[in-house]
Amino acid sequence: MTGITFSDKYRRIATEEAWAPQEMMDMYRDLYESGKLDDPGFSSLWGFYGSSNEPRPVTVRRKLADLDDERLHDMDAAGIDFAVLALTSPGVQVFDRDTAIRVASDSNDMVKEAVDRHPDRYAALCAVAPQAPEVAAQEIQRCQALGFRGIIINSHTHGEYLSDSKFWPIFEAAEALDMPVYLHPNTPPKAMIEPMLEVGLDGAIFGFGVETGLHMLRIITAGVFDHFPKLQFIIGHMGEALPYWMYRLDFMHNAQVTSKRYEALKPLKKKVSDYLKENVYITCSGMAWEPAVRFCQQQIGIDRTMYAMDYPYQYVLQEVIDLDNMAIPDAEKKMFYQDVAEKVFKLS
Amino acid sequence: MTGITFSDKYRRIATEEAWAPQEMMDMYRDLYESGKLDDPGFSSLWGFYGSSNEPRPVTVRRKLADLDDERLHDMDAAGIDFAVLALTSPGVQVFDRDTAIRVASDSNDMVKEAVDRHPDRYAALCAVAPQAPEVAAQEIQRCQALGFRGIIINSHTHGEYLSDSKFWPIFEAAEALDMPVYLHPNTPPKAMIEPMLEVGLDGAIFGFGVETGLHMLRIITAGVFDHFPKLQFIIGHMGEALPYWMYRLDFMHNAQVTSKRYEALKPLKKKVSDYLKENVYITCSGMAWEPAVRFCQQQIGIDRTMYAMDYPYQYVLQEVIDLDNMAIPDAEKKMFYQDVAEKVFKLS
Repeated sequence: MTGITFSDKYRRIATEEAWAPQEMMDMYRDLYESGKLDDPGFSSLWGFYGSSNEPRPVTVRRKLADLDDERLHDMDAAGIDFAVLALTSPGVQVFDRDTAIRVASDSNDMVKEAVDRHPDRYAALCAVAPQAPEVAAQEIQRCQALGFRGIIINSHTHGEYLSDSKFWPIFEAAEALDMPVYLHPNTPPKAMIEPMLEVGLDGAIFGFGVETGLHMLRIITAGVFDHFPKLQFIIGHMGEALPYWMYRLDFMHNAQVTSKRYEALKPLKKKVSDYLKENVYITCSGMAWEPAVRFCQQQIGIDRTMYAMDYPYQYVLQEVIDLDNMAIPDAEKKMFYQDVAEKVFKLS
Repeated sequence: MTGITFSDKYRRIATEEAWAPQEMMDMYRDLYESGKLDDPGFSSLWGFYGSSNEPRPVTVRRKLADLDDERLHDMDAAGIDFAVLALTSPGVQVFDRDTAIRVASDSNDMVKEAVDRHPDRYAALCAVAPQAPEVAAQEIQRCQALGFRGIIINSHTHGEYLSDSKFWPIFEAAEALDMPVYLHPNTPPKAMIEPMLEVGLDGAIFGFGVETGLHMLRIITAGVFDHFPKLQFIIGHMGEALPYWMYRLDFMHNAQVTSKRYEALKPLKKKVSDYLKENVYITCSGMAWEPAVRFCQQQIGIDRTMYAMDYPYQYVLQEVIDLDNMAIPDAEKKMFYQDVAEKVFKLS
């Protein structure tokens, strides 16, 4: 133990906590070594995390695969009461259709067992294969019945985005079953990565945010929330900078739609920022930084901003201490750590 | 006139104000129609602004080419006392080397004449051809002697970034002559644009920020400010979201450098955020939004955050009124509108 005593004024719920079956990481290594996947971002990410013997990737691999003693010990040491588990990026989305369907289902069964072993510590998000939207919709239904609390999507699938209506059976199921969708980063696809990759900026330092911010914005501008008004998304990393961009998103969306610059950019029922405030929750994964947390609380909403650690990629005890010490009222801190997560994931 | 009376507690200096010789816009149209430039972003941007008969592009074209009556009238109507003029994006950076050198020099002569006609209303930034770094360095020297107050770079040049050391003669001249570099957006290059372009998000709504934020970050992580510690940059649009990302930039830069993930990502003398606070000024072009202005003032510095209108692309009188009404002390408002610009561009 660390000897740190954490305040017990609220239950700390961490909402973007990664895990991976060892079998899936082995498949990643085989896929990388086969050279068969034409995805430089995958090669960059899992060429490193899957094979490197540096301390960071070795630790990440071991902690990703553990759903019992080490993880629970780490949670205790950091004052984390409860974790919402999600299959790590890029999940099954790099596999072929049939493999993706199988690994999604197997991994869901596996994480369900961990939740059953530790029901007071874990809930889980359901992994799906966007490669097969109708099957994904069925898997969402199966998982919802098993007690899963949402869906994890690790951004693009072979360079395709959920803004494409062929994927919308996933949204139809998610909305009907009241299952929120956590849109988690992946490296940018081949058509976008090179100017970032060539200088080592394709990953969590920058590319992740570009990829995931773009994906969320594509979903909004495609009119997904006009079609599925009750659908709720969650994005991490303090909203992938979209809250900061809200003014410009609204101004330029209106300017481009009005001037008919793009066939693809259609009028929407609301402003871009309205969807961010009504259909999107924000977590602080990777951004344990009071100024950004407060910016989101003020601009998106105190009732839409919540805590995430991003374990095991960012297991930093000091971050919990810093967030505990934010200069906001206790009631708002409880919303941040506990109430918002309990509501969106139905945890109370 | 609009009949609006603006406060005269400070001089309003607008620092990212675009202009273009009619000849250059004609060359853009010819280049676009020739199909010879393999740059989908240029085709998207100037295929629209150069040819469309919608009200927005027609107005933008006319106002870009005017450096006298219409522009001064518009400035008066919006309470703008003084404008720092810059050659509009993508400047000369889409031309071949020799054409770029010639058009840069000609456009600098032309804007110099406008400054001479209206010395109490305008200063100008020097356009250069990064295609010829040594010639660009000479042009910076020539322009500095003519009274130019900085350098305009419209992001990538044929897909290349100033992080590449072959461009560093430009930085050497800029630092030696104390000429700040305004890094202005362009559309992303071919290697990055497709997932944005196919849904109409390649321009000012999103792609501009990705491109320019990446470019600034590439310059920082390449160690440019370790080589040229006195060099000063200016980035618009409230810092292209980099101020919002500072915590993650620092954390992940350190994590990647420590774990030796990339050959290209080297240790730096300071944190990424230190360079943003010590070598970068921020303007509010396109982001006339108090929460973002205050975020930058607080996180980057009151002495590094300044006003820009982004004329003629965002000529919105209400934005000046909104910024005039920000809930900050008058002394800080004067810094925002006047003092910081006077210092960085040596205008007082």
